[in-house]
Amino acid sequence: MLTIYGCLRSRASRNVWLAHEAGLEFRHVPVVQHYRVAKPDAADAPMHTRSPEFLAVNPNGHIPSLTDGELVLHESLAINLYLARTYGGALGPADAAEDGLMGMWALWAATEVEPHSIEILYNRVGKPPAERDAAKADAAVAALRNPVAVLDAALAGTGFLVGGRFTVADINVAEVMRYALPAPELFAQAPHVQAWIKACHARPAYQRMMAAREKEPA
Amino acid sequence: MLTIYGCLRSRASRNVWLAHEAGLEFRHVPVVQHYRVAKPDAADAPMHTRSPEFLAVNPNGHIPSLTDGELVLHESLAINLYLARTYGGALGPADAAEDGLMGMWALWAATEVEPHSIEILYNRVGKPPAERDAAKADAAVAALRNPVAVLDAALAGTGFLVGGRFTVADINVAEVMRYALPAPELFAQAPHVQAWIKACHARPAYQRMMAAREKEPA
Repeated sequence: MLTIYGCLRSRASRNVWLAHEAGLEFRHVPVVQHYRVAKPDAADAPMHTRSPEFLAVNPNGHIPSLTDGELVLHESLAINLYLARTYGGALGPADAAEDGLMGMWALWAATEVEPHSIEILYNRVGKPPAERDAAKADAAVAALRNPVAVLDAALAGTGFLVGGRFTVADINVAEVMRYALPAPELFAQAPHVQAWIKACHARPAYQRMMAAREKEPA
Repeated sequence: MLTIYGCLRSRASRNVWLAHEAGLEFRHVPVVQHYRVAKPDAADAPMHTRSPEFLAVNPNGHIPSLTDGELVLHESLAINLYLARTYGGALGPADAAEDGLMGMWALWAATEVEPHSIEILYNRVGKPPAERDAAKADAAVAALRNPVAVLDAALAGTGFLVGGRFTVADINVAEVMRYALPAPELFAQAPHVQAWIKACHARPAYQRMMAAREKEPA
């Protein structure tokens, strides 16, 4: 039995989206970020990222994690690569070259995009207005100009990142790029990215995940 | 024929180390970082990360990249996962669980370690003394305390990260952690990490790469 740890208002959204795409059954343990729990040491506190029982699963103290029998995996993008390769059919790689490219896009998302997209999210939407730093958001937009251009060129051929079909690479990159959507100016000259994000977000598996996410405490 | 783009004084060191471990033949194109070239537009400038001929290989403008026939891959850690899985024998995964774990350690290195280890390198060694920011280095040391503890616990069992043998996971994490070595206080309570780094750096393939690296312009 697969277990996904992590509330949907976290990077676990990626894993639940992919699990729905693949038609996987799983147990969902909605561990929340410790900094979102008012009294993390209280007896009735929800399981959070510093709870002893979660640290026993992931000593990094971060969500998401996955267990699959004896296997324990952390890192949302790596969890998706594993699930797609093992259980995902056409969501995963057809050959070694595709497997390489899916790994490349995961690491590209983690290193070229996410450090910046998360700053856009925090400083335009996530933080209380008085705590937002407009200059940080603007710097992140500037840093993402070339990555967005690279992504647009990559999507220009087939509308997908790997193999001319929807795969784990699209899920992983779309989820990381979602955090940059509060900067629409970033996508004005990227029509292929715009169309791809729209198509990703129209997928029933994404909408099913987001509908459950909306029901979680804000 | 494999081609690795990127001088050894860059993250290409990881790929050359792994290629030597696997006994792979490859062409090496020592593309340098554009900011290290005094006159990047001069006719006699070395190929660098903003040279048109390199941007045709990697529009991100970063090293390393790999070509293998028609396949073009970027992201150093993903290149190593591909090379190990495809040509690396026991350096690569024996099964789906190991493949998942090798992906996890690559993304762990990229997200939990490298943003901090690189700050230690820059601010204790890399930058000219007048430009170093001791507070940034100290903050990076603090941020790496838990990741180093996690790594030490992971190595306590067999001395290796995956499968009880030396693999691509050890190369990827050791190369990212190398940047933190100018902070010895970080490893004082991590005996397994110390022994593992020492064993990694004693390997002939690593020493062959480092000997060639020393011959490159500083």
